[in-house]
Amino acid sequence: MSEMQTFGNRPRARALGIAVGALATGEFNAITDVHGVRVGHRTIIQGTGALVPGQGPVRTGVTAIIPHAGDLFLEKITGAVVRINGFGEVTNTQQIDEMGVMEGPIMLTNTMNVPRVADAVMDWAFEHSTDMNVTTWGISPVVAETSDNYLNDGRGRHVHREHVFEAIETARGGVVAEGAVGGGAGMICYEFKGGIGTASRVLPAALGGYTVGVLVQSNFGSRAKLRIDGVPVGRELLDYDERLQRESHGSVIVVVATDAPMTSRQLKRMGMRVAFGLARTGTQGGNTSGDFAICFSTARNRPHHSTTLTLPLTQVVEDGALINTLFDAVAEATEEAVLNSLFQAETMTGRDNRIIHALPLPETVEIMHKYGHHEVHLP
Amino acid sequence: MSEMQTFGNRPRARALGIAVGALATGEFNAITDVHGVRVGHRTIIQGTGALVPGQGPVRTGVTAIIPHAGDLFLEKITGAVVRINGFGEVTNTQQIDEMGVMEGPIMLTNTMNVPRVADAVMDWAFEHSTDMNVTTWGISPVVAETSDNYLNDGRGRHVHREHVFEAIETARGGVVAEGAVGGGAGMICYEFKGGIGTASRVLPAALGGYTVGVLVQSNFGSRAKLRIDGVPVGRELLDYDERLQRESHGSVIVVVATDAPMTSRQLKRMGMRVAFGLARTGTQGGNTSGDFAICFSTARNRPHHSTTLTLPLTQVVEDGALINTLFDAVAEATEEAVLNSLFQAETMTGRDNRIIHALPLPETVEIMHKYGHHEVHLP
Amino acid sequence: MSEMQTFGNRPRARALGIAVGALATGEFNAITDVHGVRVGHRTIIQGTGALVPGQGPVRTGVTAIIPHAGDLFLEKITGAVVRINGFGEVTNTQQIDEMGVMEGPIMLTNTMNVPRVADAVMDWAFEHSTDMNVTTWGISPVVAETSDNYLNDGRGRHVHREHVFEAIETARGGVVAEGAVGGGAGMICYEFKGGIGTASRVLPAALGGYTVGVLVQSNFGSRAKLRIDGVPVGRELLDYDERLQRESHGSVIVVVATDAPMTSRQLKRMGMRVAFGLARTGTQGGNTSGDFAICFSTARNRPHHSTTLTLPLTQVVEDGALINTLFDAVAEATEEAVLNSLFQAETMTGRDNRIIHALPLPETVEIMHKYGHHEVHLP
Amino acid sequence: MSEMQTFGNRPRARALGIAVGALATGEFNAITDVHGVRVGHRTIIQGTGALVPGQGPVRTGVTAIIPHAGDLFLEKITGAVVRINGFGEVTNTQQIDEMGVMEGPIMLTNTMNVPRVADAVMDWAFEHSTDMNVTTWGISPVVAETSDNYLNDGRGRHVHREHVFEAIETARGGVVAEGAVGGGAGMICYEFKGGIGTASRVLPAALGGYTVGVLVQSNFGSRAKLRIDGVPVGRELLDYDERLQRESHGSVIVVVATDAPMTSRQLKRMGMRVAFGLARTGTQGGNTSGDFAICFSTARNRPHHSTTLTLPLTQVVEDGALINTLFDAVAEATEEAVLNSLFQAETMTGRDNRIIHALPLPETVEIMHKYGHHEVHLP
Repeated sequence: MSEMQTFGNRPRARALGIAVGALATGEFNAITDVHGVRVGHRTIIQGTGALVPGQGPVRTGVTAIIPHAGDLFLEKITGAVVRINGFGEVTNTQQIDEMGVMEGPIMLTNTMNVPRVADAVMDWAFEHSTDMNVTTWGISPVVAETSDNYLNDGRGRHVHREHVFEAIETARGGVVAEGAVGGGAGMICYEFKGGIGTASRVLPAALGGYTVGVLVQSNFGSRAKLRIDGVPVGRELLDYDERLQRESHGSVIVVVATDAPMTSRQLKRMGMRVAFGLARTGTQGGNTSGDFAICFSTARNRPHHSTTLTLPLTQVVEDGALINTLFDAVAEATEEAVLNSLFQAETMTGRDNRIIHALPLPETVEIMHKYGHHEVHLP
Repeated sequence: MSEMQTFGNRPRARALGIAVGALATGEFNAITDVHGVRVGHRTIIQGTGALVPGQGPVRTGVTAIIPHAGDLFLEKITGAVVRINGFGEVTNTQQIDEMGVMEGPIMLTNTMNVPRVADAVMDWAFEHSTDMNVTTWGISPVVAETSDNYLNDGRGRHVHREHVFEAIETARGGVVAEGAVGGGAGMICYEFKGGIGTASRVLPAALGGYTVGVLVQSNFGSRAKLRIDGVPVGRELLDYDERLQRESHGSVIVVVATDAPMTSRQLKRMGMRVAFGLARTGTQGGNTSGDFAICFSTARNRPHHSTTLTLPLTQVVEDGALINTLFDAVAEATEEAVLNSLFQAETMTGRDNRIIHALPLPETVEIMHKYGHHEVHLP
Repeated sequence: MSEMQTFGNRPRARALGIAVGALATGEFNAITDVHGVRVGHRTIIQGTGALVPGQGPVRTGVTAIIPHAGDLFLEKITGAVVRINGFGEVTNTQQIDEMGVMEGPIMLTNTMNVPRVADAVMDWAFEHSTDMNVTTWGISPVVAETSDNYLNDGRGRHVHREHVFEAIETARGGVVAEGAVGGGAGMICYEFKGGIGTASRVLPAALGGYTVGVLVQSNFGSRAKLRIDGVPVGRELLDYDERLQRESHGSVIVVVATDAPMTSRQLKRMGMRVAFGLARTGTQGGNTSGDFAICFSTARNRPHHSTTLTLPLTQVVEDGALINTLFDAVAEATEEAVLNSLFQAETMTGRDNRIIHALPLPETVEIMHKYGHHEVHLP
Repeated sequence: MSEMQTFGNRPRARALGIAVGALATGEFNAITDVHGVRVGHRTIIQGTGALVPGQGPVRTGVTAIIPHAGDLFLEKITGAVVRINGFGEVTNTQQIDEMGVMEGPIMLTNTMNVPRVADAVMDWAFEHSTDMNVTTWGISPVVAETSDNYLNDGRGRHVHREHVFEAIETARGGVVAEGAVGGGAGMICYEFKGGIGTASRVLPAALGGYTVGVLVQSNFGSRAKLRIDGVPVGRELLDYDERLQRESHGSVIVVVATDAPMTSRQLKRMGMRVAFGLARTGTQGGNTSGDFAICFSTARNRPHHSTTLTLPLTQVVEDGALINTLFDAVAEATEEAVLNSLFQAETMTGRDNRIIHALPLPETVEIMHKYGHHEVHLP
């Protein structure tokens, strides 16, 4: 088993022989396979026992996705946010939709920390620009969230300026830590421990060899619905532990990156395929789900200031196999990224001594066998 | 096996023990389980052999979904159309979105017949109203389409006024004919013969006992992706026959009816779950897919003319189990309706002697067994 | 007075010295100032006296806007449709929004003729393509409408195949007939006779010298609200004639063409400025208004089939004066096109001997003087 | 002149005889005429002279609109946000659109303060709920912004927790302070001093006697375009002072309140009329405008928790005069609210000793006379 298949202490889905979809993965099977994309996490875990609202215990964090190595304000990336179920917040979506671009890093955190993280992104941007809000307008941060209230003291808003800076500044390419890290620290997926997961797909050379990378912050799903490569694993594990009784079906944020040159309209079409990828894991979203796809292309940056009247920009032709294979890539990588968030996350005890178990791997393998998937085995 | 499970000459999915989802079905496991909803088909099959553009062979038709027994113009139904992939036409979607209501029957046909069917709906409405376009405005027909070009002479636009009238006027409740009938006559699903399929779900009494009925006109999917209850049936059947080589991934129209009182905003939320239901059968939609959910509630009709300033209307509370179970019902019934369109449709030979095979049932059962679904058997 | 200012028997607004906005007009002050754009009308006027539903009198027609001289199916234009108030139909808007392109001519007609005109556009496309619906899919016509029920026998759907062909085939550049012609034949604007109006703006050379052309089919507005260059002309003319008592506020279709290279997202932004241009004439749209902006750029055509994976396409930079001046151009040309539809249209008697008067020019001049606009005079 | 016409030291538009539109105003001609709606401002003005980024001078503030007297989290108001030009932020718009409701006060501030104000709203909500983020989810604040960078040190984000609390807790009904107050402190309108403005309309008793109240934070417009009741006041005042040379066209936030029972869909239709109201003052929005309408109805509150499956809710009938008159009310009140922001605001000197002049009233009256509006006079 290569390192790529064991980012954490547990194996990734593919290390067990669970290889959903038909396309090849990138080198790291991660969003960082899209050239230039970096990821940084800051995980914040403090205290145990009974919830003291505003104090702890703390099971939260923040994740930064950095689209490119340049100035993220002056070189805006083409982007789009697609709403799947909108009971949640992604900041500045109207501006992204109006202008077709995003500014700055994409930040993932918990629900109540959105304002503090956005404020810290402003601080960070100010440090990199003496012009901002002096001779030009200010950055419009992109911050998305899911709620870790079940395990974490949400009221405390424990993600501070220094955590945000650290997530941004430690972001790197290559292997991405998954599971209960960064914004995913306190998240729950299909009533097992979830959090951050990532995956990628590379198109054949004849289709341009483009890469699609996905990173999820998974915090959704009722156990009974969980499917792994079509197998009703959740239904078979209903009695595995004391199940979570939550009112809500939770949420998921899915970040989709590609080096294929795509307009914001085309990226919206990509984002719609996220719903299909999620569905393959069993969910259909719930009433209070804040499920969003945040999509960007690294191949169509637009400068903040321009001295020309027009800009030549390349875009994918929407005819033939390329666009359809890009759609395949999004659905496949989304499905696998969710699985990786489950396979990588370890059991966590949080506020009020609530325990969320990791997906049990031996039992999962057994169930896969029961449903004919004999290619699956513990690594 | 009850009659309900063999609407056509072939069994329905449930007759083989394939019972996707967790909720109970309605009496007929059909959209007609929603009280007052009726369905009528007019199938048009003429000629064989080489295509003579504009002449034949003809493998097409039209389906009418009648939302209620009253005047469909004067008593408008609350409705919403959700775009999943918009390479297709549903007439009057902007008006439906603006006003939150639909007028008249919902018609399904092939792509090039949309104008003729819309024109015929006007004729039909005129026959039922001497006021229309004299003292009041005219009807805004709702006509949706998928393309049967592969088997049918699309250019000929063979659906005429009398066919439309017949579909509307023969519409009835109870058992709904499925497969290669009505608008679905010439349609193809996962490269097998598809067409019309339907299914329903009934909520527990504690959740109001509401019914959700779905009817699909299926014309989508590449073989390799087909999943039945999670099992990769398509992948296992790749060598079953000479496969279709189409540029396009095809389209699907999904009509969702419910007697739960839902606003147009709530119906849009329902329509989004159609994407998840479709995804469970393997697809993620293609570049040239015209995939739409057309949703209506029979419990919030709005009169064309009103003498009061305000109208009291009931709506579902979006808190707790009811709304989530309605979402479940949409996803489950959509999945099963697609399966029924495959299970019911029989092999068809069309233009240029092209053959589209029916999904082979013995092989399908065998594959289901291979993947642990021993509850499945030929009826 | 040049010919340009008297397309019809009456003068255009500018011939009276009413020159709204600040930008220069194109040569013809018409949508045809956008290079390659042609307009054709077929006006249908038959019979007088009492309405015989389905028979007459007939006061209707059809207008074709041809975006470029090439094959309108194989070379698709970048386009967008913006809904201002959606109580009306523009066909295939979902597809336009999904794909960012339009196919074929843009047709304007009356409400009930939409299906027949769409069907005729298919006929016309078939005549120009033996492949269509044989080896490729079919055209998705763009047909928009407003209702001429007040003067015309709407039920009769009097626009036939030959009228549509004639409008398309007689389309030409240069001077555009305005007023009660083509699709505008039976239309009413601010309770005066309206119909087709057009105008254009040319940007300074330093901003690329781009042209924006607008063509309206005006059928909206309550008299009391009419403003001409800010002057409350409608309020002053309330007692001019026996006013129309209509339930509805009517509708308007606004076609916006430009040779500036704009994406579909950018064209949506242009379309939003149509609302502002309309507002300058006094309206704010009514409950039953079907007000849409149909926008296209002639500088970013996309081929139906492409042998490359990507396409280099130029777009306007959204920074600085160019984009704002394009917005100015849309608002100005929309305002002036509405005025031209009023200034050009002549009094018409229609069904049931209903008379809709032309905007009275001497009175209008007098009112303009009363409000300080002494630059206005009869030509 | 009544007190109502002189909220500030300068008169309101109506006190000069400028009474745009046709409908009657409410008692205070303010958003507070909608029963239960309260407004609170906290203005922050500190320092003079050269900009020290992050320090000052400070010309900013925050405004709170309180929709009703109950618990703003547990009794959610039916609401909708309409984007006119989306280069700006209103927090949580996706959730509002998905669910059709808003939570908490509506806050207006400057651009860079959005996160801090949102965070403070959370603090405030926590103080009013021990359950929040413990047994239930947290509040989704609604914070909107325009940029006061020209006069203010935007980088400093000078709106703090205590200012937000003060704005919320001092909110009251009746007369609303206008001009350079609260969120409007540093704003600029048509290159004159702008800020907060408000107006209202009351429908006739036969149409239910409903009230529509509007409050704007005006920060938009190029001088040349300014129209007052149709008169080109801005063009006539081009040489009045040294004009602002800004790259941006600025932004405006328009809050629309009504006691008419309207669904979120209907409120979106209301919001669209804001664009028409703004247009009457001359603007068409600019490339970098963040122009939004935030609309709510006080007559359809929805409880956070509900023990029933369905909820009976009343809505306005969209047929006949009521809905159209509500549209009139929005356009009229928006126009007048913008004028009030101009008429009430006084000349301000800000960062770098930049001066923005108040609209000069004597000159304005003179211009109104020149254009025939002899009913206008200084009070």
